[in-house]
Amino acid sequence: MADAQALTPNAAQETEAKRRHDPDVRGFASDNYAGTHPEILAALAVANGGHQSAYGADAYTEHLQDVIRSHFGRRAEAFPVFNGTGANVVALQALTDRWGAVICADSAHIHVDECGAPERVGGLKLLTVPTEDGKLTPELIDREAFGWDDEHRAMPQVVSIAQNTELGTLYTAEEIRVLCEHAHERGMRVHLDGARIANAAAALDVPMRAFTNAAGVDILSLGGTKNGMLFGEAVVVLEPDAVRHMKHLRKLSMQLASKMRFISVQWEALLSGDLWLRNARHSNAMARRLAEGVASVDGVELLHPVQANAVFARLPHDVSERLQKRYRFYFWDEAAGDVRWMCSFDTTEQDVDGFLAALREEMNR
Amino acid sequence: MADAQALTPNAAQETEAKRRHDPDVRGFASDNYAGTHPEILAALAVANGGHQSAYGADAYTEHLQDVIRSHFGRRAEAFPVFNGTGANVVALQALTDRWGAVICADSAHIHVDECGAPERVGGLKLLTVPTEDGKLTPELIDREAFGWDDEHRAMPQVVSIAQNTELGTLYTAEEIRVLCEHAHERGMRVHLDGARIANAAAALDVPMRAFTNAAGVDILSLGGTKNGMLFGEAVVVLEPDAVRHMKHLRKLSMQLASKMRFISVQWEALLSGDLWLRNARHSNAMARRLAEGVASVDGVELLHPVQANAVFARLPHDVSERLQKRYRFYFWDEAAGDVRWMCSFDTTEQDVDGFLAALREEMNR
Amino acid sequence: MADAQALTPNAAQETEAKRRHDPDVRGFASDNYAGTHPEILAALAVANGGHQSAYGADAYTEHLQDVIRSHFGRRAEAFPVFNGTGANVVALQALTDRWGAVICADSAHIHVDECGAPERVGGLKLLTVPTEDGKLTPELIDREAFGWDDEHRAMPQVVSIAQNTELGTLYTAEEIRVLCEHAHERGMRVHLDGARIANAAAALDVPMRAFTNAAGVDILSLGGTKNGMLFGEAVVVLEPDAVRHMKHLRKLSMQLASKMRFISVQWEALLSGDLWLRNARHSNAMARRLAEGVASVDGVELLHPVQANAVFARLPHDVSERLQKRYRFYFWDEAAGDVRWMCSFDTTEQDVDGFLAALREEMNR
Amino acid sequence: MADAQALTPNAAQETEAKRRHDPDVRGFASDNYAGTHPEILAALAVANGGHQSAYGADAYTEHLQDVIRSHFGRRAEAFPVFNGTGANVVALQALTDRWGAVICADSAHIHVDECGAPERVGGLKLLTVPTEDGKLTPELIDREAFGWDDEHRAMPQVVSIAQNTELGTLYTAEEIRVLCEHAHERGMRVHLDGARIANAAAALDVPMRAFTNAAGVDILSLGGTKNGMLFGEAVVVLEPDAVRHMKHLRKLSMQLASKMRFISVQWEALLSGDLWLRNARHSNAMARRLAEGVASVDGVELLHPVQANAVFARLPHDVSERLQKRYRFYFWDEAAGDVRWMCSFDTTEQDVDGFLAALREEMNR
Repeated sequence: MADAQALTPNAAQETEAKRRHDPDVRGFASDNYAGTHPEILAALAVANGGHQSAYGADAYTEHLQDVIRSHFGRRAEAFPVFNGTGANVVALQALTDRWGAVICADSAHIHVDECGAPERVGGLKLLTVPTEDGKLTPELIDREAFGWDDEHRAMPQVVSIAQNTELGTLYTAEEIRVLCEHAHERGMRVHLDGARIANAAAALDVPMRAFTNAAGVDILSLGGTKNGMLFGEAVVVLEPDAVRHMKHLRKLSMQLASKMRFISVQWEALLSGDLWLRNARHSNAMARRLAEGVASVDGVELLHPVQANAVFARLPHDVSERLQKRYRFYFWDEAAGDVRWMCSFDTTEQDVDGFLAALREEMNR
Repeated sequence: MADAQALTPNAAQETEAKRRHDPDVRGFASDNYAGTHPEILAALAVANGGHQSAYGADAYTEHLQDVIRSHFGRRAEAFPVFNGTGANVVALQALTDRWGAVICADSAHIHVDECGAPERVGGLKLLTVPTEDGKLTPELIDREAFGWDDEHRAMPQVVSIAQNTELGTLYTAEEIRVLCEHAHERGMRVHLDGARIANAAAALDVPMRAFTNAAGVDILSLGGTKNGMLFGEAVVVLEPDAVRHMKHLRKLSMQLASKMRFISVQWEALLSGDLWLRNARHSNAMARRLAEGVASVDGVELLHPVQANAVFARLPHDVSERLQKRYRFYFWDEAAGDVRWMCSFDTTEQDVDGFLAALREEMNR
Repeated sequence: MADAQALTPNAAQETEAKRRHDPDVRGFASDNYAGTHPEILAALAVANGGHQSAYGADAYTEHLQDVIRSHFGRRAEAFPVFNGTGANVVALQALTDRWGAVICADSAHIHVDECGAPERVGGLKLLTVPTEDGKLTPELIDREAFGWDDEHRAMPQVVSIAQNTELGTLYTAEEIRVLCEHAHERGMRVHLDGARIANAAAALDVPMRAFTNAAGVDILSLGGTKNGMLFGEAVVVLEPDAVRHMKHLRKLSMQLASKMRFISVQWEALLSGDLWLRNARHSNAMARRLAEGVASVDGVELLHPVQANAVFARLPHDVSERLQKRYRFYFWDEAAGDVRWMCSFDTTEQDVDGFLAALREEMNR
Repeated sequence: MADAQALTPNAAQETEAKRRHDPDVRGFASDNYAGTHPEILAALAVANGGHQSAYGADAYTEHLQDVIRSHFGRRAEAFPVFNGTGANVVALQALTDRWGAVICADSAHIHVDECGAPERVGGLKLLTVPTEDGKLTPELIDREAFGWDDEHRAMPQVVSIAQNTELGTLYTAEEIRVLCEHAHERGMRVHLDGARIANAAAALDVPMRAFTNAAGVDILSLGGTKNGMLFGEAVVVLEPDAVRHMKHLRKLSMQLASKMRFISVQWEALLSGDLWLRNARHSNAMARRLAEGVASVDGVELLHPVQANAVFARLPHDVSERLQKRYRFYFWDEAAGDVRWMCSFDTTEQDVDGFLAALREEMNR
């Protein structure tokens, strides 16, 4: 049935698309403004046709476990979900009792960007700690890591970190190992929000496992959407002894896909070869190119070391506003004039160079 | 941009797929065992390429509103979500206060098949009513529709029905109109779970609006996955005065897709022409063909009038077990020997005829 | 310290009270319309004065454990809470995971009278079963006791029964033993809502432990308010292996009293001697006296065997309405003309006889 | 029935009490280590006897509304609840939608001392702000007061302050007025946690209304337990337009007392005369006496201005430890050597002088 030819947009469809959006325009707003990598889109067609058991009992999800184990070791198990908030909330619920609390940076996505889903869906208490660069340390953890026997206090059961962080910064594998040891010694588990984990691995030039299970992380939100997938993330359990009944948790959290083969086959396309790494290396490289170009523009200040695919900069507010009319991007702290420029798997050198030219023009107006 | 040719699986990929699953095998287990309709898959490629604003601020989601209004009138607004449970729980939260309750059939999907997500995510109280055929009536509603001023009782604020029901039965538009009037007179709103709404419209041979907004339904879970989409459903608000801040509700319910264009363009492919109706008519027709064939097999009893794409039947348990080795399908009530056979958009006449032949063989063994 | 004399209302206060309510008027509406037994009120004064550690680290709460163990065996532990809904929701949370469900009668207080607190506070899914008389049986339990491995279904983890039931009926100890065995064999725990457990024990003429821990019940909501306490109930853990971190659960459920000594000393007054039993026997006896009187009134039908302190009857609606102007009581099923008459620890023979006389008068009008 | 004499403990009971705890020993651990004021205990007896409608439909709760209005104006309405966490969570739910967030100090009781009840029971997101002294300012509020239209962010709908704060500090009425104006201009409501509101009013020497409804506060947690009640607090709605269905909210939050007359009559005893103020003035005066004494002890540093009934001090750790063997009190920040000494309505001058003598002794060892 699935006639492969039919999967190719015909001329009329392509025209229609051009009317709806210009497929040649890219900005620097977010890596989820990008679309789907062609190899992943092709994989969807591969998995199509015929019938496959719903809700994860399909051949692709079964095979995905092998792929995941090739990255994260033989104890790892993947639970595909729809999106990052879903992955985080399922993972955090898996590690907490009803009375549990999660220690995280006050800049963490779970705290600032999920409309309270951890609290509302999971009943989770977040104990936030201010950080300089989005990264926790044992000392910062200890600000909230106490009072386990005090029933007046939500019980700290999880430390949640992000790699890379919301601020684009990176932990070394050793830093994560130390955090995990610190948490484990206090009876806590560690969750890693890996929405951009591939960028981190590419930047550190190590396998993902080096700073996850090898470092002691218990559970992982594995991000695919920002690295070229159409949709889909996964909760990856690294320490099976830390969790129970993940399938029930995923279902009650409304993150169970019926046609799961289509998430799993995307994961396969991304992870079974080196596509995940190519994409991440490319977006990182584009960010470096962008940062290097920006460094040469007078009046624009780079705010953080550019380690992955994000560039944070400070520049005159009016320049940003004019520039935003030409390229999409976001203010990060509008009052301070701070902006964030993200590169993605489909950012081209021409995109970067064109943006830099526009930046120079607007600075010199 | 994305080179359309790249979207076509190459020979190696096709071989790989054949190794993983046989694209020519179809069963009767569920309409979500089917894959994605080729026109919808092609639409994904159309929307690909370039950058589009994430989280619904894209051209496709904007256009979707026109498509939705062409079906449901000018006041309707669609909020694409990931899956059916998500659609139901977002919709029900939108119509309830913290103290609200939802009256539904005790066979309702929200009660029996969502692992308590309405209760756990939404804090919703379900007031269930036994029914003969999955359909509520004003009299059945009244068994739980009382005590609005009694603080000891969760306040009935919503009547939730499904079209078609979990039992494959259908309401007429007039029946729904009467239910809505009954509910509205008592200050309650009406939610319709339309996971298979297209099959209902096709079976009744009326537009979807005839039994939704024209009948008084306030909010709708619009089902796409079971009718040929890769993933994706939508909450469709029909009565805007009944809801507030749907976007926040969707986000906190973890149902906000970042690359939403890829849900919206599927909806466009399904709804802007007649694909939704073709698919539904086809699966209904296949169910009728199946039912007619079954009717001629001695010892197999059809359990409900076959109105849409489900066939419920009773047959000897051992026959079912043997047959399940040849075709996938589920017991509905294993003790009674009841089974459910679902047809989908990709069920072929040959599939039905082959299944009937197998059924006859197994009955005669 | 607190001068005991000061605890006695002075003449002015007594006059004021008479102005606010008539302390000699009693009705048959509910056992929580009654006040506090004088011995319990006196106990409050006994515990007063000086300082005692808050939140349960006081001498009275410590001593309460001995009292509880004298009733329920050496493994029992009591967690005083404020009210019955609180006791039930804390107890049920203690026995369930996030994905857990509770099987109960559809007439259960937790389902019909707690405004959805189990769902909203505990995220609990209730699986209700219709019963004839408010009592579950193994067969009735089995209607919902299945599908533990099916992630689409909330996992049945608890059977919750009430002794006596909302309908005033009683289980024998043997019936409860059979239920518990049935539940345990299926991996489920058993909760007993004992809001009126003393009346049950008095009616069955057995110790409370006979139909709780001796019968296999894992956790108990122990009711005090309806048996003469000013306020206060307790969760009594009978099977410590079934629960964890009760103190955290009680606190997060907002059921932790700061001056807990005043709940615990009431429990001591009630349970360390035979006050609990005297009160219960008295209210049961008054209900029997009432039932016997009613039985002799033509046109009034007793609806259930009167086993404890509730009398259910059916009589002409207009008679009830006239009678309600003289004595407070509630319709149970107004359409059917069914009423409930409750006796309490302070109901007097004169109250009963006066009520019966009024009933006869109104029937003969 | 209610024989007043019976309410007086007899000699045997008094002896028993002496055995269980020494009614003459008081410490400085907390104002909820104190018992019940004798006038309040006597009021319980006044309300006893006869039958009163349960769940708040009694004469005492009805009358309480007059008492409350005499303090807070004719629009105020009181909803008695069990405890402070309950009051706070009911009040905050009343002011928020499902997507709402609450801005509060990071030292707020709702954040640090309620085991996550706001998050778990109410699904509330707390947006905490670090403060120097526990007090919010418009500038501090603005750190989290933004992004109302951003669905990724929990919507700031409430500012919650405490008077006095957890750190014993006080807002002036004008400071609260400015905060309320600031909040209201941004569409937010204001909740005041008044667990120790009487101490604040006494310290400021103004009526409670001066810094609540007169200043713009919308809803109030009115604290009674710490000011001499046996148990009981109240949610006081000051701006009725801000809330709906308070009774349902209270019930579903498990804070509805059946024999509510016994909470209401305590409120009447406390608030209808000047007992509330006498108690608060007394505990404040004892704290001043204590602070003045401490000021003269070399090596002990007072940490905050002593405005109400709390004294925070820093002294050598070993001195505190020895002192704790003679008087109960808590470390506030054990690492820093900070302690908190609370006075209560029943603290005597002798208690204070004895404690000071002990402090001097231990300092000089």
